[in-house]
Amino acid sequence: MQKGYFFTVEGCEGAGKTSVITLASEYLASKGYEIVTSREPGGIEIAEQIRSVILDKKNTLMDGRTEALLYAAARRQHLVEKIVPSLLAGKIVICDRFIDSSLAYQGYARGLGIQEVLAINNFAIDNVLPDLTLYLDVDPQVGLKRIHAHEDREINRLDLESLAFHQQVREGYLEVEKLFPNRIVKVDANHHIEEVFERVKQALKLFLKI
Amino acid sequence: MQKGYFFTVEGCEGAGKTSVITLASEYLASKGYEIVTSREPGGIEIAEQIRSVILDKKNTLMDGRTEALLYAAARRQHLVEKIVPSLLAGKIVICDRFIDSSLAYQGYARGLGIQEVLAINNFAIDNVLPDLTLYLDVDPQVGLKRIHAHEDREINRLDLESLAFHQQVREGYLEVEKLFPNRIVKVDANHHIEEVFERVKQALKLFLKI
Repeated sequence: MQKGYFFTVEGCEGAGKTSVITLASEYLASKGYEIVTSREPGGIEIAEQIRSVILDKKNTLMDGRTEALLYAAARRQHLVEKIVPSLLAGKIVICDRFIDSSLAYQGYARGLGIQEVLAINNFAIDNVLPDLTLYLDVDPQVGLKRIHAHEDREINRLDLESLAFHQQVREGYLEVEKLFPNRIVKVDANHHIEEVFERVKQALKLFLKI
Repeated sequence: MQKGYFFTVEGCEGAGKTSVITLASEYLASKGYEIVTSREPGGIEIAEQIRSVILDKKNTLMDGRTEALLYAAARRQHLVEKIVPSLLAGKIVICDRFIDSSLAYQGYARGLGIQEVLAINNFAIDNVLPDLTLYLDVDPQVGLKRIHAHEDREINRLDLESLAFHQQVREGYLEVEKLFPNRIVKVDANHHIEEVFERVKQALKLFLKI
């Protein structure tokens, strides 16, 4: 293997990203690949500091664009310190969320504009795009039910607000997919994890020719 | 006055920005304008927090692009919390450095690319460009001499490195001026402050039609 590969996993809350990443790591490790899994800020000190500015509850005046620039800054540092060195060492990096989350959540659902958020993220990633992105497409209602412990619980007002927002996020992801049809593989994630992972495995096999 | 005006003052170290801003504020106040002077991060809590991440001496691994994104984030918040409200209140805002500093220092002198740094700053400022930018153009050798207390002091090795960098910054500013010929007024700042301010005053009078 001359160099590594950079895979990302995207999707709304409850799409099953964590399970898919665990299974994909095990599968690829069993095929002899060295795997690094990560998610921003990934324990990178500078990225953690930036994250704590974003999450500081006192910062109620934070503007949406400030926040988007801070996310891009943390992404840059995580990329430089962790993702790129792993790729150069020939490993497969599987990252839980990356640029497409910013495009779907901030660009589309928060209304900053996909192209606008893409511009600052292009600066941040400097052409280090994922080789393959697995977008786990889930009906937001299914996703929200999964993240609640009791799947039969009634949906309340807050859930409905959340549902509307997640519907927006999903629409955002579908727009993003149209922009990068060669990189992004959409996987129907409404089914049981075994079924979802079977589809993911096919995408990985196709990509890696294994 | 229906709304305020946004003026910025730019230039290398020792160009005389501080003196020019003081004199311009006094002059415009004497003409009845309400003046707000500022410089990033301008006491804005979120921008100060971002600034402290940039300046943290432990952060030796900080990538140049991370830094540029953090500067843009701090700029955004300072703009939203301080500059825009002042403009809406009909005041004249005079800001010591703004977008053109990033273009000249990081885009050109640090080699990130003027267009690349412009892209993230366009996102940060969202069309709130200065109405008028006074670029104080100084020979870097003259500027560096000014910032040393003893003007007859010998120039040492560090000064020479600094000189080469400031020469780059000046070249950067001249490139930026070409991009925004209508907004940026170049003022020869190699002369004594009275002469420099006379030229600045003419530019202000022309702009404000006073």
